[in-house]
Amino acid sequence: MVLDTILEKIDSNQNRYIEELLGFLKIPSVSTYSHLAADVRRAAEWVCSHAKRVGLQARLIETKGHPVVHAWRCRQPDQPTLLIYGHYDVQPPEPKEEWHSPPFSPVIRDGYIYARGASDDKGQFFTYLKAIEAILAGAGELPINVKLLVEGEEEIGSPNLGPVLAANADLFKADAIAISDGSQFARGVPAITYGLRGLSYLQIDVRGPRIDLHSGAFGGLVKNPVQALCEILAQLRNPDGTVAIPGFYDQVLELQAWERNELAALPFAEQELTQYLGIADLSGEPDFAPLERKTARPTLDINGIWGGFAGEGAKTVIPAKAGAKVSMRLVPNQRPEQINQLFIDHVRRLAPEGVKVEVRELHGADPVLVRRDQPEVQAAVRAIATGFGTAPVFIREGGSIPIVNLLQETLQLQAILMMGWGNPDDGTHSPNERFRLQDFHHGIRSVAALLYELAKPGA
Amino acid sequence: MVLDTILEKIDSNQNRYIEELLGFLKIPSVSTYSHLAADVRRAAEWVCSHAKRVGLQARLIETKGHPVVHAWRCRQPDQPTLLIYGHYDVQPPEPKEEWHSPPFSPVIRDGYIYARGASDDKGQFFTYLKAIEAILAGAGELPINVKLLVEGEEEIGSPNLGPVLAANADLFKADAIAISDGSQFARGVPAITYGLRGLSYLQIDVRGPRIDLHSGAFGGLVKNPVQALCEILAQLRNPDGTVAIPGFYDQVLELQAWERNELAALPFAEQELTQYLGIADLSGEPDFAPLERKTARPTLDINGIWGGFAGEGAKTVIPAKAGAKVSMRLVPNQRPEQINQLFIDHVRRLAPEGVKVEVRELHGADPVLVRRDQPEVQAAVRAIATGFGTAPVFIREGGSIPIVNLLQETLQLQAILMMGWGNPDDGTHSPNERFRLQDFHHGIRSVAALLYELAKPGA
Repeated sequence: MVLDTILEKIDSNQNRYIEELLGFLKIPSVSTYSHLAADVRRAAEWVCSHAKRVGLQARLIETKGHPVVHAWRCRQPDQPTLLIYGHYDVQPPEPKEEWHSPPFSPVIRDGYIYARGASDDKGQFFTYLKAIEAILAGAGELPINVKLLVEGEEEIGSPNLGPVLAANADLFKADAIAISDGSQFARGVPAITYGLRGLSYLQIDVRGPRIDLHSGAFGGLVKNPVQALCEILAQLRNPDGTVAIPGFYDQVLELQAWERNELAALPFAEQELTQYLGIADLSGEPDFAPLERKTARPTLDINGIWGGFAGEGAKTVIPAKAGAKVSMRLVPNQRPEQINQLFIDHVRRLAPEGVKVEVRELHGADPVLVRRDQPEVQAAVRAIATGFGTAPVFIREGGSIPIVNLLQETLQLQAILMMGWGNPDDGTHSPNERFRLQDFHHGIRSVAALLYELAKPGA
Repeated sequence: MVLDTILEKIDSNQNRYIEELLGFLKIPSVSTYSHLAADVRRAAEWVCSHAKRVGLQARLIETKGHPVVHAWRCRQPDQPTLLIYGHYDVQPPEPKEEWHSPPFSPVIRDGYIYARGASDDKGQFFTYLKAIEAILAGAGELPINVKLLVEGEEEIGSPNLGPVLAANADLFKADAIAISDGSQFARGVPAITYGLRGLSYLQIDVRGPRIDLHSGAFGGLVKNPVQALCEILAQLRNPDGTVAIPGFYDQVLELQAWERNELAALPFAEQELTQYLGIADLSGEPDFAPLERKTARPTLDINGIWGGFAGEGAKTVIPAKAGAKVSMRLVPNQRPEQINQLFIDHVRRLAPEGVKVEVRELHGADPVLVRRDQPEVQAAVRAIATGFGTAPVFIREGGSIPIVNLLQETLQLQAILMMGWGNPDDGTHSPNERFRLQDFHHGIRSVAALLYELAKPGA
């Protein structure tokens, strides 16, 4: 079978792949640093020319910021098209003094490549280029059509990706999207992420008197805005940890028994986690296990609060104003617009007399739930089993991934394959970021297998 | 009668008194500015030499900061002794650009002296020196014994006054204290302040996880410290505005009917006040009038709160910690130590599981209530009636005056005569501070009358 030949080729070329990745990791493509803009472009050009070298057509799409790499090979009109998303930009390396080796001088230690961007995301999306190379070398043609979209602004919020997608929707049309920019469930436990929580992020501003007042001269005469704010915030959650906003849970897609069993079967080191967090016990909604609460149940958190005097010592002031940031993690089928409205209505009802209360919507993201019975998802399961030698588990993430929402909305796609090749302890965004050599290798194998699994039989 | 002669002398010397005060006001004795330390000392020396010129003995007591002026004339062994407190230091003049005439170039406009320190407190305590001068010039001797204590650090919290008093308790022993460092109830309504609220000032610190957490990855697993803090703070007051701490009101000396009637008779411009504050309505304890709530009822206010992200935009963080400053204004017979304990007990009971809550006491002051049936207070009533041509009203202040507590505790005195000669709109601590010439004049007359009123008949 042709895939076996290709997997053998991948196995025997491991060292060369690593050498090539090390070269890529030397480019300090920190997208947020304007003084490194030339290096960021150099990384885009590196990806573009490497894509050509492995047999793709490729070009840069210019944006107001860093360019997008667009590469493709679409020679199978009867076969599906896979869009591969990645990003060539990286996080800043600071604090540099905490790195054991320089962030842009990649080294191999104990089976890991250490460098900024090794796992996030250079090493992960590079697996796609190497798998494509191996297939073309071994079989002469890809079994399906592929398109690559590799951006250079993921770490700064992808401000220019939306316009690029909107202007080129046809170019990026596909039947499925593959994203490897995350992690497995645990070391040795590869995973497919099929759910992401959404987000509603709002700000409450409370205004009382025109100016800060002396609490001696005015204490007893005016409603204190901080007090009012606390009264509101205290009523956003019930004593048992559930969200107190009327209607908040109405659209929640309840977890099914099979899904709860599946989550319960995942290894979850609660004691290790509480130790890491420095708390005695986890807390949250009763009747739901920690993994359920963290990924498949909605929550509400105050992200910040301010008002009045926060310095050292004692200042006797009644603050003129106070404010707080509050966000909610949403799950299917909650929608941020709907939840925002419920939140605003609830806050208005709670607002005490004597102060002005204003609520602003700052940010929102829809939750994502990928149907697991899609053939593309089942193809990914088999591909990972082939690549890693062990079947993946299905997991949901507690956070949201804005580019997933963007891709899904712009391209109107349901088959989103989120397959993180990294590990939870890769230290992405931290000093000493690393990527496990074995995961790099297994990732390349999985991608090769995926391209064959996605091909329609007999087409 | 000898007082009449003296009052006539005071009336006819008005212009000279004003000229002298203008000279004093030219010295920029801003105690908080170290680069003006020489000017602060010059002001102390000015007071010292002026005290000698009017017939007192006087000297400087050195401290770790600015000196204290100690002056005295005690030649009536059978008569009581009055301790006169004042301060020769002033607030910084900033913002200077808002002054219509330079802060240390005093000018007279529309019946007011405009200068930094005109009302607070140079102009007010200077009335004592002028009254003493007039009596000695007119009668040859004072009817009672007087001691002056004029400090140079009132505007920076009197850090060295305590040690000076402790080391010289005998020197400052007296039967009554006179303080003119405040204001009348309103223009044309002279007042004796017989009550001050006390203070309990505490800080609450709430700690959750060891570090700030990503709200996506951890939302649903940990108790949010800001949430916990808000739940505590929301339960410090009842919905009707009263303080919810059990036992808080137990020691409160209830207002008597006569006192409430007296307060109700004072002019109180509620609409003017709400307009100034920029709020629709005053709020506070039901069943008590605004003037009662502001001066004779205890309150609780959150003075500041902080925790998590307070910048622009959205940061999805579960804060590791949060904190708040909370203070209570106390009335007789509440004691800060007792109230602090009730507060701490209450907060401990409210503290939810999953976070660590710590309460620290930052600052306290006992409330002050001067018994109005003391002969010295009645003497002051008559003296002000003589000096101003209208009897004073009795008022209570909503704030505390730390030096009053200090003097009362160190010298063990009940007869504290707080007689502000200023007006509420003098702009002390603000640009264009001013002191009304008529009040300056009436103040001198009142002091002269007070010295005679305090003398025991026939002694």
